[in-house]
Amino acid sequence: MRMVDIIIKKKEGLKLSKEEIEFFVKGVTDGSIPDYQASALLMAICLRGMDKEETLNLTLAMVASGDCIDLSPIPKIKVDKHSTGGVGDKTTMILGPMVAALDIPVAKMSGRGLGHTGGTIDKLESIPGFNTELSQEEFIRIVRDIGLAVAGQTGNLVPADKKLYALRDVTGTVESIPLISASIMSKKLAAGADAIVLDVKVGSGAFMKTVDDAQKLAKAMVEIGTGAKRKTVAIITDMDRPLGKAIGNALEVKEAIEVLSGHGPDDITEVCITLAAKMLELAGVGDFERCAELAKGTIKDGSALDKLRQMIKAQGGNEEVVNDTSLLPTAQYTAEYKANSAGYISAIISDKLGMASMLLGAGRATKESSIDPGAGITLLKKPGDTVNAGEPIVILHANSQALFEASFKELDEAVRISVEKPSETPLIIDIIQ
Amino acid sequence: MRMVDIIIKKKEGLKLSKEEIEFFVKGVTDGSIPDYQASALLMAICLRGMDKEETLNLTLAMVASGDCIDLSPIPKIKVDKHSTGGVGDKTTMILGPMVAALDIPVAKMSGRGLGHTGGTIDKLESIPGFNTELSQEEFIRIVRDIGLAVAGQTGNLVPADKKLYALRDVTGTVESIPLISASIMSKKLAAGADAIVLDVKVGSGAFMKTVDDAQKLAKAMVEIGTGAKRKTVAIITDMDRPLGKAIGNALEVKEAIEVLSGHGPDDITEVCITLAAKMLELAGVGDFERCAELAKGTIKDGSALDKLRQMIKAQGGNEEVVNDTSLLPTAQYTAEYKANSAGYISAIISDKLGMASMLLGAGRATKESSIDPGAGITLLKKPGDTVNAGEPIVILHANSQALFEASFKELDEAVRISVEKPSETPLIIDIIQ
Repeated sequence: MRMVDIIIKKKEGLKLSKEEIEFFVKGVTDGSIPDYQASALLMAICLRGMDKEETLNLTLAMVASGDCIDLSPIPKIKVDKHSTGGVGDKTTMILGPMVAALDIPVAKMSGRGLGHTGGTIDKLESIPGFNTELSQEEFIRIVRDIGLAVAGQTGNLVPADKKLYALRDVTGTVESIPLISASIMSKKLAAGADAIVLDVKVGSGAFMKTVDDAQKLAKAMVEIGTGAKRKTVAIITDMDRPLGKAIGNALEVKEAIEVLSGHGPDDITEVCITLAAKMLELAGVGDFERCAELAKGTIKDGSALDKLRQMIKAQGGNEEVVNDTSLLPTAQYTAEYKANSAGYISAIISDKLGMASMLLGAGRATKESSIDPGAGITLLKKPGDTVNAGEPIVILHANSQALFEASFKELDEAVRISVEKPSETPLIIDIIQ
Repeated sequence: MRMVDIIIKKKEGLKLSKEEIEFFVKGVTDGSIPDYQASALLMAICLRGMDKEETLNLTLAMVASGDCIDLSPIPKIKVDKHSTGGVGDKTTMILGPMVAALDIPVAKMSGRGLGHTGGTIDKLESIPGFNTELSQEEFIRIVRDIGLAVAGQTGNLVPADKKLYALRDVTGTVESIPLISASIMSKKLAAGADAIVLDVKVGSGAFMKTVDDAQKLAKAMVEIGTGAKRKTVAIITDMDRPLGKAIGNALEVKEAIEVLSGHGPDDITEVCITLAAKMLELAGVGDFERCAELAKGTIKDGSALDKLRQMIKAQGGNEEVVNDTSLLPTAQYTAEYKANSAGYISAIISDKLGMASMLLGAGRATKESSIDPGAGITLLKKPGDTVNAGEPIVILHANSQALFEASFKELDEAVRISVEKPSETPLIIDIIQ
């Protein structure tokens, strides 16, 4: 088998066989296929596409390139959740405790943030003492003990994805439904869960800019999950507006605690209950309505907040933050971003907002950047709210006043004020299963 | 400017600016753009295309990547000819002398053969003593003195093409009209001629398999030439059948001498007169009909053959071959390939025939292979001729009898015999200017 023939086949729009896809993934992983051939095939895949079977075969070949986590020592059905990344997305820290409080184990591996999107690992690490670098044994032990753990990736999972992603990033081949869905799903499959709930975000703050693209990605991922014999559901949620009111690591932990205490923003609460209910449904707890009621109940009776407390303790963090969020790191300086005219907040462009937060120190411009756990943004207003001229819309938090200016510029582009009341759009756009 | 943005732009089907194309070509030439980014862009160009302006800018950027030959010391309009490569194509050795005999200088740089196609340089080197490795000064001096020289490439012409071609070859990105036309035309423009006649071959033995593709390539190349202010004409000629009756280096020199002596095969004679007439027309000698008459005249009066003799002498070769072709190298062994049934020769597939000749030692399987000047094939029959069962169709020439078997197998696939007389197709299919 020659790589150049595989490239030409895809260039001509033909379907690649399982063997050809395996040859490619194996060669990329072991370095026997040079990057210039891999990137040519990636571009051909971007422009010619891959069908359902090719995408499944690509995903499975990527899974086979490295280790897989064995969650079988944990009893019951293990449900994983994945979000395609958004601004101010703290859902894992909320729905993990909700689901675990109902005795469904959650063994969650998460990533770090890059650019305008944050990562759950960075957020949790803002809790004093919290350790996300668990060995596989520790990770499984904690889930067995308390039903919930969130850790950074352990083991050599999907090395093919690391190589391919690095190459896609510099060759303009990131945006491709088959490649994105294979990248996400290979990591989910290798992470060992029995069922997967996907939160596909759509809008300016998300990877998928249109509902149509988000539906295509969701469908492709559900097909892969189903093809790999895992119950899989995708929920398409709106990311044209930020989720909740906090962006930034400690600020988002604080907001997660507020949601679990029953007084968080409505939007993030609603999304978390929906995602948690779907996870519970896949775990066989009951139908969706029943599961949503149960999920709401974990907030009301405090069992979800207690589960978060248990997890923080089990992972070495200061569990007292759950009762006293002032124990979380804060930034030394704050500044207000004010409305320059009166009217309605017609939009807060999520990716610009994420960028504004990153510039304050809450995110990473490059993989090598360090982050400031106390930095970030608090929204005082959300789309649809009214403002007076000069009224504060956003509070900025940073450890250097010099950082405010660049962030203000992003906010100028992020915040839109209109005379007419903007139309309301639903938060949960579609469910694909 | 970032290469990844240029790749994404072309991936999305957008037009690249002059500056972006120059950035790419410069980066490929100086190595600042890695191969994996270059190959991703090449694939995007293959699948998204390039318009007329982009293709011209690509060509001009490639020309600028290296040296250009300055033919201004040679008086009059210098006309170059380029053939897109075919089997048994010895046109340069025939029309060069014809045009030069009419006082229009021909300064021709040619290449070596690879695979089933031969190269003029290899063919001329089968003449004892003939030297194709001329310095630029010698090359120009000979053209000034006698009006004709054929040499291998001198100087560092279009280094960008060398890098890009090597990359295209291994990344499945060879077949693309903009990339092929920029590759060919950049070399023609750098070679310094004022006007260019392109011989675009179409059919099984050629790079372009369909008339439609050949017309597209011809149009793209004429547009580049015109855009670069060189008079350019393309003639589309049939390569579904081999040109002439000889394939192989010394065998083709012998046939060229026969054509210039007035008793060569009709097809090759006709193609050469047409191409020569177009060259003369571009040089301002007269209209096409007049130029064709003049070209014919150079055969009749022996002036073209005399010009070939002068060139062989000037380039150090034994000029006596013109009178006595037995001075050319010959192969030690011959074999006959016979008809297995009676009927009409309905087709002789050129690329298979070229392969059969290569296997006898007349061509190179890889760039490193050496060639046998005496080896090759002589056709006793051409498409349309009748044969009896057992009658010889082809004579094979080789210096090892062990080579015949593999060559016979190719001939089994090359030669088709039918009961019905095949329809005649024109040799000159189209002229694009």
